[in-house]
Order: sequence, then C-alpha cells, then structure tokens
Amino acid sequence: MSSTPSATLLSRITGPADVKALAPAQLPQLAQEIRDELIEVTARNGGHIGPNLGVVELTIALHRVFSSPDDQFVFDVAHQGYVHKLLTGRQGDFFAKLRKTGGASGFLYRAESPHDAFGAGHAGTALSAALGMATARDLRGSHEHVVAVCGDAAFTCGITLEAMNNVVGSTKRLIVILNDNEWSIAKNVGAISGYLNRLSTSPTYNKLHHDVEAFFKSFPTGVEMNKVYHKWKRETKDFFVESSLFEKFGLRYLGPVDGHNLAALEKNLEFARHCDVPVLIHVLTKKGKGLDAAVNSPEKFHGASPFDPETGESVTPIPGTPPNYQDVFGAALSRFARTNPKVLGITGAMPAGTGLSQLAKEVPGQFFDVGIAEEHAVLFAAGLATKGFRPVCAIYSTFLQRAYDQVIHDVALQNLPVTFCMDRAGLSPNDGPTHHGLFDLSYLRCVPNATVMQPKDEDELVDMLHTSLHLPGPGFIRYPRGAGTGAPIKNEPALMPIGQAEVLKVGTQIILWALGNMVPEALKLAARLEREAGVSVGVVNARFVKPLDRNLLLSQAAVVPLIVTLEDHVLAGGFGSAVLEALQEAHCPTAVERIGWPDKFVEHGSSVEILRASYGLAPDDIFQRVSDRWRGLQTGQKATADV
Amino acid sequence: MSSTPSATLLSRITGPADVKALAPAQLPQLAQEIRDELIEVTARNGGHIGPNLGVVELTIALHRVFSSPDDQFVFDVAHQGYVHKLLTGRQGDFFAKLRKTGGASGFLYRAESPHDAFGAGHAGTALSAALGMATARDLRGSHEHVVAVCGDAAFTCGITLEAMNNVVGSTKRLIVILNDNEWSIAKNVGAISGYLNRLSTSPTYNKLHHDVEAFFKSFPTGVEMNKVYHKWKRETKDFFVESSLFEKFGLRYLGPVDGHNLAALEKNLEFARHCDVPVLIHVLTKKGKGLDAAVNSPEKFHGASPFDPETGESVTPIPGTPPNYQDVFGAALSRFARTNPKVLGITGAMPAGTGLSQLAKEVPGQFFDVGIAEEHAVLFAAGLATKGFRPVCAIYSTFLQRAYDQVIHDVALQNLPVTFCMDRAGLSPNDGPTHHGLFDLSYLRCVPNATVMQPKDEDELVDMLHTSLHLPGPGFIRYPRGAGTGAPIKNEPALMPIGQAEVLKVGTQIILWALGNMVPEALKLAARLEREAGVSVGVVNARFVKPLDRNLLLSQAAVVPLIVTLEDHVLAGGFGSAVLEALQEAHCPTAVERIGWPDKFVEHGSSVEILRASYGLAPDDIFQRVSDRWRGLQTGQKATADV
Repeated sequence: MSSTPSATLLSRITGPADVKALAPAQLPQLAQEIRDELIEVTARNGGHIGPNLGVVELTIALHRVFSSPDDQFVFDVAHQGYVHKLLTGRQGDFFAKLRKTGGASGFLYRAESPHDAFGAGHAGTALSAALGMATARDLRGSHEHVVAVCGDAAFTCGITLEAMNNVVGSTKRLIVILNDNEWSIAKNVGAISGYLNRLSTSPTYNKLHHDVEAFFKSFPTGVEMNKVYHKWKRETKDFFVESSLFEKFGLRYLGPVDGHNLAALEKNLEFARHCDVPVLIHVLTKKGKGLDAAVNSPEKFHGASPFDPETGESVTPIPGTPPNYQDVFGAALSRFARTNPKVLGITGAMPAGTGLSQLAKEVPGQFFDVGIAEEHAVLFAAGLATKGFRPVCAIYSTFLQRAYDQVIHDVALQNLPVTFCMDRAGLSPNDGPTHHGLFDLSYLRCVPNATVMQPKDEDELVDMLHTSLHLPGPGFIRYPRGAGTGAPIKNEPALMPIGQAEVLKVGTQIILWALGNMVPEALKLAARLEREAGVSVGVVNARFVKPLDRNLLLSQAAVVPLIVTLEDHVLAGGFGSAVLEALQEAHCPTAVERIGWPDKFVEHGSSVEILRASYGLAPDDIFQRVSDRWRGLQTGQKATADV
Repeated sequence: MSSTPSATLLSRITGPADVKALAPAQLPQLAQEIRDELIEVTARNGGHIGPNLGVVELTIALHRVFSSPDDQFVFDVAHQGYVHKLLTGRQGDFFAKLRKTGGASGFLYRAESPHDAFGAGHAGTALSAALGMATARDLRGSHEHVVAVCGDAAFTCGITLEAMNNVVGSTKRLIVILNDNEWSIAKNVGAISGYLNRLSTSPTYNKLHHDVEAFFKSFPTGVEMNKVYHKWKRETKDFFVESSLFEKFGLRYLGPVDGHNLAALEKNLEFARHCDVPVLIHVLTKKGKGLDAAVNSPEKFHGASPFDPETGESVTPIPGTPPNYQDVFGAALSRFARTNPKVLGITGAMPAGTGLSQLAKEVPGQFFDVGIAEEHAVLFAAGLATKGFRPVCAIYSTFLQRAYDQVIHDVALQNLPVTFCMDRAGLSPNDGPTHHGLFDLSYLRCVPNATVMQPKDEDELVDMLHTSLHLPGPGFIRYPRGAGTGAPIKNEPALMPIGQAEVLKVGTQIILWALGNMVPEALKLAARLEREAGVSVGVVNARFVKPLDRNLLLSQAAVVPLIVTLEDHVLAGGFGSAVLEALQEAHCPTAVERIGWPDKFVEHGSSVEILRASYGLAPDDIFQRVSDRWRGLQTGQKATADV
C-alpha cells in the first residue's frame, strides 16, 4: 500500500462505478498509482508482476466501457487480474496480502468476488468459457456483454483453437481481446506468434485501424454505432473478408490497437460493444511496462519471487539454502544430453520454471519449447520416441492433467520410453488450488506400463532421471516446488533397481513408508516416536509408487503391527492406497494408517507449513495421529488377549 | 474373403512392393477388390466401413509413391487403416477376423505390424506425432518421409492446431494429407469446416490445382522435381502466400485434389515428396464410396455394426434384446430437456453414439455438437453452468480423458453443476484398448467435489441423470456399452439420496459390493455361493463410488468376515480401493477381496465374455476366487482358534 492512501485516486475506487466517474484526464494518474501498488505489493509478496503491468490501461478501459459484474470479463490464466482486483473493491489490506493466507488470490476466483466471472490458473480456457457464457446469455435472452481477455500465448493452446472453431456457430455477440505482448511465459513460439507479429507491423492493417478512427471522428457524438459499423463494414470489406486468420474463423478483426493508449482502447471497445458479430480486438501491450527491470527481463518477471523494486534484483536467498529441485533437474538433464544426443528436453513455454533453460543454453539442438501446448508436447515426445530418442517432458504435475489422454493413449499404450518430470508435485502455496500438484499419483497409478517415482532428495532425483532414461517404457518422476534437502549430488548417477524401496531405519513395531519429500519428515517422526512414545519405528523411502516394492512391504507387514504411509498427495487413490491394495492382494491383515491430503481443494496460503497445519498435517498432528493409532492397536490387542 | 481368392489381384499383394509393381491400368480393379473385401468383412464383423471406403485410392497412391515401412504413414484416429492393412501383408484370414479375437485390430497398432508407425484410436493425434517423427528424422540425419493422414475432423481438435503452430519451427519436411470428406463422425461443424468447403469450391484454388498439373505436363519425365517446384512457387506466389489458413501456419497448400482419381493423387503426392517445405494436400473424398447405403447414411456407416451388404440394413437384433444404455440416456435427457429449458446436451461429434441424436431432433435449441473437441465441450459447459444452466456432457469414458484438466480445473474446482454421462465405461470389445473405459473411477475419485455413480440398470440410469441434474456440483455417471438389463423405466424418475447404496440381498457371511453392470453378476454369484458353498451371501448395489456409502459398509463389515467388491474397471485406484480406504479409515480389519481388471492394457476381442475369461474374470473364475478366499478365511480362523 502507498504511504498516504487517502490522498490517492486508487484509494477512493470502491468499484467500477468509481472508475467510470473519473475524468479522462485523471486516468494517467490512476494508472500510475496502480503500477506503484502492483510493484510495491509484488516486490514484497512475489507474483505475476509483468503481465499485470502490461494490462493497466486495458483493464481501466474495460471497466469504463463495460459494467462488471453485469457484463462479464473472462481473463485467460487470470494471472493478469490484479488490476481488475484493485478496481473491483479488493484494494487495501486484502490486496496487500496478495498470495498470502487470508489475502487476495493470485488468480481470479469466483468465490472471491462477483466480479470474477470465471476463475482460472491454467492457460487457454477463457475463450471456451466465455463462449459458454455468451451462449447462455443468448439462450436466456438477456443482454449483458461477455468479454474474453486472452494473451497471445492462449492461441498456442489447442483449447483456444477448438473454441475459435465454435464461435460463429454458437453466438453472434462475443468480444475477444487478444492481449499481444509477444510472450507466453517465455518468448512466444510458433506460427501464430510469427503471424501476429506480421499483422502488427503490416501497413494494410495499420491503415484499417486508422480508418476506424476516421469513421469515429466523422460522426457527431451519439450517432448509433450500428450504422457506423455497417458503413465501415461495407467500405472495408474488400480488404477485410478472410484476410486475417481470425476472419477465417468468422471473427471480425480490429487492430492493432496501442494497449497503453486509453483513448484508443476505449474507442475500440466501445465500437466492439455495438458489433453484431463476434469481434476480436488485437491489443499490443508491453509486458512489465512501468518497471524497467520487468521490461528488460520479461520471463523472470512473468511470475517473480520477491524483488527489490528499485533494482529488480531478486531477494537473495538465505545463505546455505539448498538448490531448487528444478535447477538440479535442469543441470542433470543438460549433463545427460551433452553425452547422449538421443536425450531431448521438451517444455510447454516454461524453460525457466522447469529448469530446462540450462539445456536450452548448453545443448540448444536438443531442447524444444512448443508453447503452452501440453498435448502436443507429449505427442511430439511420443513421435520422437518411436525413432529411438529419449524425450523428457518437463511439465508441472498440475499441467500434465492437460495431456492425460496423450499419456494413456499415445505413450503408455504404445509403451514408448518418454520420461515425465513433474515439478510442483505437492503444494504451490502462494498460487493455490490451480497450481497444487496433488492428483498425479491417482491419475497415473491406474495407467498400465507406467513407472512412477518420487525421490527423497535431489541426488535421488538425478538417479531417477538417469534410471528413467534407461526404462523400456514411460517413466514419471514427481518432485516438489522449491529447495531440495542439500544432499550432495554424486559424480556418477546410479541406475536404480525398478520397484525397489530403500530401508533407511530398521524398526520392529511401526514402519513408516514415506514418499519423496515426506522422507525427511518420517525420519523426524520416527525419532520422536521412539523418544516420546517408546516405540521402535522403522523408516522406508518408498521411491517407487508403481511398481511398489511389495516384497519389502509384505516381509515387514508380516512382523510389525502397523504400517504408516506418508505422501504429499491426496489420499483418494494415492500412495497409501497402493499400499492398502498390495496388502489386500496378499491377504495381509496388518493395520495401516495413511497420512496425506483430504478430499478438498486446498486454497492458497503463505507457506506450505501454514497450509499443512490448517489441514491437520503439521508434524505435531501427525505425531499425535500415529501415537493414537499405536495406542489403539495396543489396547485392541490387549482387549483381544483379555477375552 | 472373396470366393476365389487366387484369382484376385488383392490376394497376390504381400506388401507395398506388390502395389508398386502393378500397372496403372490394374489399379481400378485392385480398388474394386479392396472395396468388395471391406464390405464383405465389415458386413459380417462390423467396423469403420465408411471411412475406409473413402480412402481406397488414397491409400493405394500412398503406397505407390512412398515406401513403407521406411517412409512412415501416421493415420489420424487410425480407423481408416483397413486398406493400409490389406496392402501390407495383413489380408486373408487375419483381416477376415477384423476386430475379433486373434484377428486384425480395427485400428493401427505398432505391435501388429512394422507398417503401423503410430497407433491411434482417438482423433487429432497424427500431426503432432508425425511432427515428432519428422523432427527425429532431421535430428538423426536420415531421409525417410513422414506423412500424416488426417481427416477434416482432426482440424476441430485442439491438438492438431497446437501441432500446426509448431510445424514450421520443427521441420522443413512433412507431408500432411487433409482427407476432407466433410464428416467427423457426424456431419462436421464449425468455422474450419465451412472454410474448407469454401476452399474446395473456390475457382482460384481450382485454378491453382490445374496450374500444378500444367507444370507437370510441361516437363519431360525425369526433370528434377525441386526445380519444378521452385518455378511453380515463383509463379504462383502472389496468389498463394498466406492466402489459405494453412499458409498462415506456414504450410504449403496443394489442392483440392480428387481423392478418387489415382493419377491425380499420385501426381500430387510425388510433387509433395520433393517439396522442401512442409506441405498440406487437400484431398476430397467421399465417405462410404462404393456402398450406396454408406454414402447415403454416413454417420450410421462411420462405425457400423454388422449389416446386410446388399441393402445396408443392420442385422436385426435378437427379439427381446433390451434397449442400449445410450438410447435410454438419450430418451431421458430429451424428456428432461423438454420440460426444463435449462437442461442442455453437449456432444463432441457423437450424437448417435452417445444417444444425443434424440435431443437434437426433439429439442434442437438445447443440443450442441462442438466437433471432436472434448476440452472445449467441457469448458463450454462450465461457462453455461455459471449462468444457471444444467449442461450434460455426453462423452465416452475413454474420451473424457481428453478433458481431464477441464474437469478438475474448471468444473470441479469451481464446483459447477455439469453432468458427465460416460458411456462405454468398461469394455468396448471389438475396438480394443483405445476405446475401453477402464480408468475413469481412478482418475475421478481423486477429484474433490465430484459425485461419481454407476447404475445397475437402465432405470437407475434415468434416476441418476435426474439426480445429477439436481446436484450443486459436478456429477459423473458411467455406464457400459450396449444393452441394458431390460428393467422397465419408471414413469417418474426418483431423486436418489446422495451416497446411499442399495441392499439387494441380505447375507451374514459374505457381502458382495457390486458396481453397475456387476450387480447382476453379483446376484448370480451370491446364489451360486449359497447353493454350492453353503455360505450366506448378501449383495449391495453400490450406486455411488464417491461418496461411498460408508455407514452401510462399516455396519456390514462389523458383522461379516468378508467383503467382496466387483467392478468393471482396473483395480488400481478403483471402486475396490475406495472400499479399502473407507475400511482403513475406520480401522476396520474385515477381509476384502477385489474383483476387477488387472494392470494391463486389454486388447480387442470378439466379445466381453471372451476377454473377461482371458483375464480370469469369467463367472467361474470369480466363483472360484471368492470360494477359495472364504475357505482360506475359515481355515485361518480355525488355525487361530487352534493356537
């Protein structure tokens, strides 16, 4: 928040009506105040600063021309909704706690505000959803406007293109804003990106854009827009019909419009508001505008961790912090690729987030960024694998949901050796439910031919990557967001025996079967149980969820009364379920306690620890659960013995 | 097979070399023989007759111009690969058993032949996979050709469009055949379909097509094609550059070409073979060509059940056969939609297969066919649901995998009341692994807010649909392919208590918890166990997998020694797992036996019964398993008692 909030225009904005009430001359000041607030809050909390700085004027113009929440905006990905939040009654303390517990979500969220017509967090969904809303409006005969605000990267997503194919068949009234900043998360790739660039710089289109302006100027205020439109349509038809890609899909194309010129934006939006055909307005914006560091490093400032607002320097990590899993993965893949030309890395527009940027830099010929197109990424990998290559798809756990059928139908069914490196398995605390990776074990355990693993530390991650590159079929490696444990990386990676768990500590009464990042927790828990409850507790690093190490499990279950599973994943169908299934199949009656996430969407919060605690998953809670269960078993056995 | 196989050309084709060796004048006879064989075999076995009759000449031309398996064809969906099979050594007995146990798969399958470069069964995957293969070729420096053969319906799929965006960035050599028959499964929908139609009938493009021919004629045989191409490129550039949709994506467009003119096809393919840019050949074919009934009813003959080859009449079902689940669903939805304008039906190009054609006919304003675009279908439904509508997505179990992220991220996270009717849950025996619906419970059980059900008969299906239309959030109803049980449909559907199972038979020693189509099996099994093993067996119709009826389960588990679960689904993470989880959470030690599919992709076969038997799931096998388990428990108890 600014130091003297009462003095600012922004502090007096309680909703869209206040935005409309401002005089045009006041808008640049409002825009500046919004930028100051965006920078201040994201410098402290981290967040999608670049995309939001780019849409300040566009969002102001939207709220001046349309009337939310009657009219509805659907923001694609919804990471560029901060300005919208500030203009719809969510500024002040709530916005100051952006991405923190109790504060504003970093994305739009229907439960947060009636102005959030449709939530998101993944890319490419806005146009389809908006089309559903526009069709609903037509069916019920109401008259509100539906505006989809899509980045240019949305047009690399198949869903957007599926929706494009359906626009004209579904409605006559839909407004699509193509917010073209030439970036997805990384620099945009592909044919459509090149096409938009040509469109932006084509004199023909610039001329048409000026024609639209000329038409407006030639009519006195108040002239009915439809007439303007029809005249304009007649006069420009020869140029226009099917000349642009969008017109081949039946959308009227307007643009390009300077996305930082408020008057031009309002004029074009006003025009679109009166069109009786679906219209696409091509708006050119600058990602990060107003923060030099963000303009100069658009990928870094797409979604930034806290930074110095003056210099743009990231806040220095605490000395001694272990490297992030993503960087360990990136370095390992690059190292394997250097010595094996068959090893390839594939990302969907996230070279930095996945750690693949090191491969891109060091072995560019073996690196592929396909844009935000996970389905294509996986199929492309499948195609490569048929010819003896070893593609590695680096796709976050939550985003692999977008290529689920390709995983089953193309990779697993054909048993092709594609490796999936699924970062952000577990919580992505500041991002929230759209970004947590809590379902992957359930949706992968049912897939035949899949080998599913999670390393206990970053050295084991390297071993698993190495191992997966030697599998005859698909390998899936999940690992959490953020820092590893600091385990030193061996000089030579080890080939792991498939389906073999690791006994870290022997125990005779309880065995903790822990997966991945739960292993260090399990070691602490075991020590505490021994110390405070006097129980002999063993710890197993499960390593493989599929195939599970049944031999070890059954040999232990034959001699200890309680197996406890620990996983950073939902309980329904997860790792603990695999343990239950294995015991049931062997007709083994040993008691099991499963620790994992409940059947709920987990909100965003300030940290993993806070969120775990709020779901009864703090170390104390788990200690209590296991102690209680142990005592219950003792009592039960005693009761049986007494009978 | 034809009556005098030794006399035919087809019978002498052992592989592509034999196709190349034929004189052009022999090709019409070959085409006719192939059509005869296609009709004869599919009339008997059922199959994708329409699509295959349409590609006879195209496939012959492909095998004459290219050299499989060195050059590689990737057929989209791969249901149009019958001709390819006949030309690559799979004719005769193997093809005669098409879609039957031990015979040819109805789709391409890498394990079946080295000529099947990439398998499929779902739409829209060919271009992406082919791009991966072409890139692999470039990386390894080999020179083979990769040809993607895509129907026009593939261009309604997002994946194809994601791939299109990546073509020029990935390779300079790729040949895409757009096999345009104006149909997906139903009549094609959407902007691209309209665009292709204009393209096919545009004099400009037809002129260009003739230009290509003229160029060929003007050169003596043997002139290097590259030169021809470059001259042609220079001379047509003004017309061509970016004039078509495909050129905006950077592909050279050739066409339209008559897909039944072998000479024209070979000429254009030969030309494409020498292009040094990615090229798309637009081929116009007639679905069902050669069988009048199939030309006149393209949707019916897309994938037909056995029919009379003379009249096209379907083989009459055995009198007394109960109606198919899909038809009961279609009738019920239409009935609900007639009285409630908020109830909408959405299909991805499968109005007949899903049963939605009745809604389309009776309440067309509440019916939407979005093309083969499951992601859009689900998002579109989510958008509709935000405005108070009650959309029903009718998507086969296996195809819902294609919209998994939309189910989680858009519908369930926002808890929107969308109903999913998932036909073909369980086996689709003749189609095989790409079409079985064996994973949905595992991938849906982990999704918060989901209500997941399966009816025991078609009357309960209607009740579940009615119930789902009253849920506050998403409802998922799975049901099998084919005929119901013949249960009479009540006049008024019942609102089912959520999460409540139904006790069909009381028992004191074993309780069978059966899901959906396993309920009738369970009733028979119970009777046999009582009769032959002398055990008292209860039967529960589970109805809800999520939420599971824990109260009933636990109250039973407290008094009987054995619970048996039966599901038409894989065991990993399925219904039986939900039962194990519920018992574990309640610390209930009751023994469980789970009956379901193992962790394998199940091949195609002649019938459900044959496939079940080959995986140890025939009624006798299940009886044996349960009896053995029961005896084991008795012995174990006795042993314990003896100690």
